[in-house]
Amino acid sequence: MLSGNTAIAQITMTKSDDAHLIETLVHSETLADGSFLKARRDTVRLPDGRNAEREYIVHPGAVVIIPMLDDGRVVLERQFRYPVDRVMLEFPAGKLDPGEDPLACAIRELQEETGYVAGQWAYAGAMHLAIAYSTEIIHIFFARNLQAGAARLDSDEFLEVRTENIAHLTQVCRDGGVTDAKTLTCMLWLQNVVSGAWSLDWQNPDQRPAA
Amino acid sequence: MLSGNTAIAQITMTKSDDAHLIETLVHSETLADGSFLKARRDTVRLPDGRNAEREYIVHPGAVVIIPMLDDGRVVLERQFRYPVDRVMLEFPAGKLDPGEDPLACAIRELQEETGYVAGQWAYAGAMHLAIAYSTEIIHIFFARNLQAGAARLDSDEFLEVRTENIAHLTQVCRDGGVTDAKTLTCMLWLQNVVSGAWSLDWQNPDQRPAA
Repeated sequence: MLSGNTAIAQITMTKSDDAHLIETLVHSETLADGSFLKARRDTVRLPDGRNAEREYIVHPGAVVIIPMLDDGRVVLERQFRYPVDRVMLEFPAGKLDPGEDPLACAIRELQEETGYVAGQWAYAGAMHLAIAYSTEIIHIFFARNLQAGAARLDSDEFLEVRTENIAHLTQVCRDGGVTDAKTLTCMLWLQNVVSGAWSLDWQNPDQRPAA
Repeated sequence: MLSGNTAIAQITMTKSDDAHLIETLVHSETLADGSFLKARRDTVRLPDGRNAEREYIVHPGAVVIIPMLDDGRVVLERQFRYPVDRVMLEFPAGKLDPGEDPLACAIRELQEETGYVAGQWAYAGAMHLAIAYSTEIIHIFFARNLQAGAARLDSDEFLEVRTENIAHLTQVCRDGGVTDAKTLTCMLWLQNVVSGAWSLDWQNPDQRPAA
């Protein structure tokens, strides 16, 4: 599923001559062991040989889904996000369970949170959410041929499902009505897919070979 | 500076009838008090009256800059990001000092990290980076009329300054060569500004009224 990313290894990934940039682990200790947040404090060796500390969240990874309705609208959620103290408009997303395949997670989260089941899926790419202090990677999926159904929210989840016209949603992003970075990153994908600039490889999940 | 966001308050912001979504603070305690990461564990009252825990990073806020050269290229950085264990291609960014004005921070960070000084600045908007577990907001600025100079990196900063053609950079984003969510969000802004779909209010910082 990630094979589409190999072509760019020479751009993002660490190169053989990047020793002047790379930090290496010296020592690692637990900084926080919450029920949700796990944080570590690592001592690292800097490129110049000195030591420094790096504190970061250890995250299991996540998925976000861009669900496209047949009439051109997309499906989003309104959800109160406690850390930023406001109701946010965002694409459906969720954390990977241990060992879970990202597509399986996307299928599960879309149905649990919105009730929709998609006939076709496409893997778009990945984003790293907070590179200064989190290991989190979010896999971006598109979903289409959607059929509505009943959501099955976790007992502590409270959200509203919304559908939005893409042109209007783009204006909302410009005007500050969407400030969630994962959703804004999805909008970059959505805009380029809708314009035809970026193509997707749509798959029926039942026919998809195992990752 | 943030006045452009008021028009969308009815979309993102909490509405008077959002009581079925909102969580309220019951009790707060320190989860981690690192030298960089500060985390809290709050007990909150859910919309249905039960309690739950929310663990999150307390972040001072940050800026990211999209520096546009006169020849149409943009300025980025290659920097090793320890939590994701790779060299990342990203727009210049940095944390707000206590009480610092976001534009002052953007001017400072651009010069410190890349050496460039901009003749004109435009505030684009904001993103919330990791809404599930961080208070972080990143203010997005465009900079132009750039003049090159010498960078002044912190003693533990090691990075390379890069310039990229926007069309090529867009392909790199599609192909996975940029996975940093703040940079991908900036690409949504850059693409729409370059196309003329979204406009900016350019200002000379010396003439800008105090925020």
